[in-house]
Amino acid sequence: MLDFEAGLARATANGGIAPEKAAATIEAACRADLYSIEALGREATASGNLAIPLVRALTNEVAKTDPKAAGFVHWGATSQDVIDTGMVLQLRSAWEIFTADLDWLAGALATRAKEYASLAMAGRTWLQQAPPVTLGLKFAGWLDAVDRHRARLREARARVMVVQFGGAVGTLAALGNRGEKIAAALAKELKLELPAIPWHANRDRFAEVAAAMGLLAGTLGKIARDVSLLMQTEVGEAFEPAAPGRGGSSTMPHKRNPVASATVLAAAIRVPALVSVMLSAMVQEHERGLGGWQAEWETLPEICLLTHGALARTAEIVAGLETDAARMAANLKISRGMIFAESVVFALGEKIGRQQALGIVEEACREATSKNRELASVLAEIPSVAGIVSREELAKRTEPGAYLGAARSWIEAVLEAHKDSA
Amino acid sequence: MLDFEAGLARATANGGIAPEKAAATIEAACRADLYSIEALGREATASGNLAIPLVRALTNEVAKTDPKAAGFVHWGATSQDVIDTGMVLQLRSAWEIFTADLDWLAGALATRAKEYASLAMAGRTWLQQAPPVTLGLKFAGWLDAVDRHRARLREARARVMVVQFGGAVGTLAALGNRGEKIAAALAKELKLELPAIPWHANRDRFAEVAAAMGLLAGTLGKIARDVSLLMQTEVGEAFEPAAPGRGGSSTMPHKRNPVASATVLAAAIRVPALVSVMLSAMVQEHERGLGGWQAEWETLPEICLLTHGALARTAEIVAGLETDAARMAANLKISRGMIFAESVVFALGEKIGRQQALGIVEEACREATSKNRELASVLAEIPSVAGIVSREELAKRTEPGAYLGAARSWIEAVLEAHKDSA
Amino acid sequence: MLDFEAGLARATANGGIAPEKAAATIEAACRADLYSIEALGREATASGNLAIPLVRALTNEVAKTDPKAAGFVHWGATSQDVIDTGMVLQLRSAWEIFTADLDWLAGALATRAKEYASLAMAGRTWLQQAPPVTLGLKFAGWLDAVDRHRARLREARARVMVVQFGGAVGTLAALGNRGEKIAAALAKELKLELPAIPWHANRDRFAEVAAAMGLLAGTLGKIARDVSLLMQTEVGEAFEPAAPGRGGSSTMPHKRNPVASATVLAAAIRVPALVSVMLSAMVQEHERGLGGWQAEWETLPEICLLTHGALARTAEIVAGLETDAARMAANLKISRGMIFAESVVFALGEKIGRQQALGIVEEACREATSKNRELASVLAEIPSVAGIVSREELAKRTEPGAYLGAARSWIEAVLEAHKDSA
Amino acid sequence: MLDFEAGLARATANGGIAPEKAAATIEAACRADLYSIEALGREATASGNLAIPLVRALTNEVAKTDPKAAGFVHWGATSQDVIDTGMVLQLRSAWEIFTADLDWLAGALATRAKEYASLAMAGRTWLQQAPPVTLGLKFAGWLDAVDRHRARLREARARVMVVQFGGAVGTLAALGNRGEKIAAALAKELKLELPAIPWHANRDRFAEVAAAMGLLAGTLGKIARDVSLLMQTEVGEAFEPAAPGRGGSSTMPHKRNPVASATVLAAAIRVPALVSVMLSAMVQEHERGLGGWQAEWETLPEICLLTHGALARTAEIVAGLETDAARMAANLKISRGMIFAESVVFALGEKIGRQQALGIVEEACREATSKNRELASVLAEIPSVAGIVSREELAKRTEPGAYLGAARSWIEAVLEAHKDSA
Repeated sequence: MLDFEAGLARATANGGIAPEKAAATIEAACRADLYSIEALGREATASGNLAIPLVRALTNEVAKTDPKAAGFVHWGATSQDVIDTGMVLQLRSAWEIFTADLDWLAGALATRAKEYASLAMAGRTWLQQAPPVTLGLKFAGWLDAVDRHRARLREARARVMVVQFGGAVGTLAALGNRGEKIAAALAKELKLELPAIPWHANRDRFAEVAAAMGLLAGTLGKIARDVSLLMQTEVGEAFEPAAPGRGGSSTMPHKRNPVASATVLAAAIRVPALVSVMLSAMVQEHERGLGGWQAEWETLPEICLLTHGALARTAEIVAGLETDAARMAANLKISRGMIFAESVVFALGEKIGRQQALGIVEEACREATSKNRELASVLAEIPSVAGIVSREELAKRTEPGAYLGAARSWIEAVLEAHKDSA
Repeated sequence: MLDFEAGLARATANGGIAPEKAAATIEAACRADLYSIEALGREATASGNLAIPLVRALTNEVAKTDPKAAGFVHWGATSQDVIDTGMVLQLRSAWEIFTADLDWLAGALATRAKEYASLAMAGRTWLQQAPPVTLGLKFAGWLDAVDRHRARLREARARVMVVQFGGAVGTLAALGNRGEKIAAALAKELKLELPAIPWHANRDRFAEVAAAMGLLAGTLGKIARDVSLLMQTEVGEAFEPAAPGRGGSSTMPHKRNPVASATVLAAAIRVPALVSVMLSAMVQEHERGLGGWQAEWETLPEICLLTHGALARTAEIVAGLETDAARMAANLKISRGMIFAESVVFALGEKIGRQQALGIVEEACREATSKNRELASVLAEIPSVAGIVSREELAKRTEPGAYLGAARSWIEAVLEAHKDSA
Repeated sequence: MLDFEAGLARATANGGIAPEKAAATIEAACRADLYSIEALGREATASGNLAIPLVRALTNEVAKTDPKAAGFVHWGATSQDVIDTGMVLQLRSAWEIFTADLDWLAGALATRAKEYASLAMAGRTWLQQAPPVTLGLKFAGWLDAVDRHRARLREARARVMVVQFGGAVGTLAALGNRGEKIAAALAKELKLELPAIPWHANRDRFAEVAAAMGLLAGTLGKIARDVSLLMQTEVGEAFEPAAPGRGGSSTMPHKRNPVASATVLAAAIRVPALVSVMLSAMVQEHERGLGGWQAEWETLPEICLLTHGALARTAEIVAGLETDAARMAANLKISRGMIFAESVVFALGEKIGRQQALGIVEEACREATSKNRELASVLAEIPSVAGIVSREELAKRTEPGAYLGAARSWIEAVLEAHKDSA
Repeated sequence: MLDFEAGLARATANGGIAPEKAAATIEAACRADLYSIEALGREATASGNLAIPLVRALTNEVAKTDPKAAGFVHWGATSQDVIDTGMVLQLRSAWEIFTADLDWLAGALATRAKEYASLAMAGRTWLQQAPPVTLGLKFAGWLDAVDRHRARLREARARVMVVQFGGAVGTLAALGNRGEKIAAALAKELKLELPAIPWHANRDRFAEVAAAMGLLAGTLGKIARDVSLLMQTEVGEAFEPAAPGRGGSSTMPHKRNPVASATVLAAAIRVPALVSVMLSAMVQEHERGLGGWQAEWETLPEICLLTHGALARTAEIVAGLETDAARMAANLKISRGMIFAESVVFALGEKIGRQQALGIVEEACREATSKNRELASVLAEIPSVAGIVSREELAKRTEPGAYLGAARSWIEAVLEAHKDSA
């Protein structure tokens, strides 16, 4: 907010309103360490927003040096100009961090997708084992989503990084016929774009930031959910990185809790609702609203902080993920071949039709389940199967590595697209 | 969903799996009027999704003509492939409607912005009268937002209009080494893009649609809030179009209720929460999730329907908005010039400093309020003012048309940008 | 809504306004089958609510028999009176269903809590195995929550089951000095309470219903989450009941998907956001609001339907839950005793202090993990342990049944409280 | 949280586990000023929750005095026991504040309802003027809602004010057979109830607090919306209390912004979504969840703070509300009698039927509107009206005070019910 006031002082000096010296004095007073956040916060409750006490404090500070210069503080601006632009400037800093961290995460996911492209593990749908996938395929799916988020942030950037400067009702009438010129100068000072029109009560810009964060938080939550499920004692295929003092229990010495995942999942529960606040708050009255704007003040920063916390934790998880290939191989066997039933259905189906094949294999699955046998053995004993699919082919069809379809091609396609996105 | 099954039949025929004749038979059975929505709905409860009974019904229908062809129905696909792609195809239709209607709305707003560029009315901030704006400026602000929504929909389109086809776990393993080829053929049949990788449990595409709708609903709600406030009996500056049987009261014959605004505002209350459902639902487990996916089924269509309802009502409002220029002029006077206080502050401020000017004018406002007098008269009697600002200039400064600052320039900038967006 | 109109006709007849014969004619026309829902829906779009076309259609229907009687239809009422009271009457029916089904569910949970009071299984915290619990303890925790929901519904009932009748602005002015008398008669006709004051724009009653449903949906979601996690292929301790055509996969014959849990979880994702709609919608303007009231119309029924769907599915799950005690026992062993580490810490801790004990056992856990050994064996070899806890006691301390603490007492306390709640 | 640890130390001493002296040492170290919130916060990020570093710091502090006593810190408890109980203890303090402030607010509303029982003002529905109400009737409607909130808080209190103490998985197994006894002693120490069973993963208690707050915030938002609408420059019937430095504008000296209402409305926008977080977070896994619990930590306090902020601001508004009876009277006239149209319809309707009466008065309203005339004058010239309703009666029927129906009776009924609620 002080950057805005400093920029405005320079812009009004350029525009011939404030004397150069006054602008310099104001600019010199625009240092955060001169003011008490606590005192400003207290006064904001009565005045209704933070800009009013800040402008007052800044004016007093300037007046100490140059009482005349004090008269030029905040010239032509309204509270919302300084608060909104202050938020934009913070978002610009946030964007740099998000962009860098997402680039890093995407790179790490790409490395992992390649590294684990052939590491077979049970696929799981509806939380039930299904035909195999590879760990690399999981990473590729996440990477594909993260690259879309990177594109969304790029696209939103141009809409968001604009100055807010409209004065009381958006007309800059207090500046007479110099409004646009000073607005343009201010934008230039702050290295922001000048929008076609002030946007005091048209809030889609900030709401879009919230939505983009919400989408990202959803993807991060999905990754954390998967990791925490893989980390279950009964699954044990992948683990958050271990570190001293990390994920221990206050009472259970053996525990290694998915603490990073918990943080990410908590964010994925909280952020969607906060996004709905930003969307609900868009209904702002006339030239400047009542309630909606105020609802944004804490909500948008909270969204950014929670989402970035989730992003940082996800980066740690991806960077240090420990995997247990032996456990993956073992888990692929616990269904006694039943996760390969589909493969047999299709082998049979090409000869006898899919519906009939399905019936035969379903019956064999029931038999294998109730007798605790391997599906391949049960199938090999069924004459109508044996005539079509040999015991050898049945064996081959329950090899995880032989039933991965297009997994590798998809991974390559994602990596290719990722390269283009850089 | 039947379009997906028909496309898949053709694609598997092209790929050498299904005989051409079987594909033709399947395609012929992919007509919605052959099936009972109600019966399918009932069966979906037990089976867990709508695809299972639909595929069964389609298979039975095909079997009537050609039992062998029945075996090729839904070849290699999983329930989610057909449900997700069915949703994408519906979204494609929705996109055409939204695009056309938003283009129309933007055009209408542009016309209005031009038409009312000079029609002065009270600006209002925090629901209090403030310096004047023009009705055209309001329209320009809305147009600027609507043009951003149009850009967002364009950008999202490329990410959303893709086929979903991955089979059980996203590998298309049931299709052996023909998976990608058939996937590409299917995408071509349906005139959708082929994504780099199936996206069964990476849901940002659909959540982005929801978010884009939520942003749009927020802007529409803002317009409706403004119109309904302007339509208040005590304000009376603008009105929803009248029509027989529209907006009447069941008991009050004089009423003309803002019924279109009510519908839009109701959508603006409902849609944000539904967006949060889509974001929350993104946390989907492993290869295909449990609960999250199911939560999307009714939510995304509901979001589209509510938002389009709001869009259609807003178009009606904008198309037929009635305005009362006399009332606007009268309302500009009810503050006895006090909404022009800012103008005097700045005129004085350039001479004696803004803070001192503010103090003088605040005191004059109190006097004018308590004595029920015009602000200009009170000011004219204050010697320190009279020496700087003449009675004539004071009078001029309470002319609404003389205190509109950059209003017209902003409108032109928005219209210019709008032209480029077409 | 027709029940309201019939009741109002009788009440106005009792109050000496409408002739008895007119009331009888109106009452006779208050049959839903006389009207087309579709036609009413279409007209509601233009008129702004469903009451206006319904009252018109009812008036026309009455006029066919007795044109004079038609003049007494809807006497003194406003649209919101009939819509709100119609909703209350539907909620009353819903309450009976919810109450009965919750009573049934609580009973079933109580039976299960008793039945499985001693069936040990791994406790799980942060999705990691922890010391044992019993399946009965899980059921007791759920029962305890369900009994609280039953209490909440009882408490809310008295606040909700009231008539809405205030006329245009809540004063019943159209009824002159007979307003209260007729309101009381109407309430009596409908077997609802007469509230102290109409509540057109004070919406906490309906929002409370939504909140109570939201709380219930949360508990049901928790149950479904637990069941679906227990049903994982790698855990396999409990299963939704099987039924033909239930939970199958369109492509994987071996699958038994937790379809009921998916439905419940989807509701637990959707309902919270719908509750937020009802809360947001409470901000209704003046005597009757704009947008907020309309936002309730579909939302509250949707909340009730989704929550009841979840309740019905949960009842099915609880009624038919299949359990695998052998698998529970096996899973208790996969940590090689490490889930009993806490027990050893406390045994040692009483002698050497908890912090020192914790250090020793943590070290032993690391050793057991890296060497793939039983924790008890590792511990038995540590001199400082052996001196305090004998090998026999170590063995005993890794018996699940010996480390259940107050589990049985808690279950009994819950069952006792449940009996009192009946 | 330190109160919990102190209570637990005393309870374990009573239960014969910890020596009395150790308990006293621990209790002495349970003083918040001994610890650095900042340091604890930093460590919590790695450990996953705040209890782990706090217990460690407390243990270290105790060890300074008595290393043996340090071994008894946190005996048998898990992190969630101390965090949840800490939250309950904070809620107990919050409850006292809320209860007192709601009692005060209800009292103030009752005083106002009586004071303004006869002050007529325009009723407003759909933001359009409608027949008159009294300001007292508005207050009575708000009071009626606030009294229901008081009842809800009373009912919820008993469910919420319970200790959480279950150890690792809710069995208190680490305490052997002394679990329940120590749990009961702990509850007694903390003056909380002992629940039938620990509730680590059954979260309806906290979610109910959130829901009760959400309902209250909705009512407060409704009050603030009404006040801010009445305070509009064009309406001017009621005003938030003025105070120096309150509600001013940084650029407009004449402004008196509804700053308290803005704060309340912002809370009414934010709290509903935060409630949905608490409801979504209820789906917690097994014995202690992952993500859901963590999502509650900041959300529930934020809900309480926002709602109490709204409550405090509403109390200020109600306490100091300024009213302008002259403006109310003037506003009752701006429709030229049209808000009394209903009255005429009913007067005519008793003679010629409501539908026919409605038609005549609607036509007269159109005439009065287009000719800018008083409705009574237009009606007096219509022969079919004149024969039934005399010019004198028409005049009387446009007297606000004569068309208030049951307003006074409703107010009295609310005040009567309020007296009983005390």
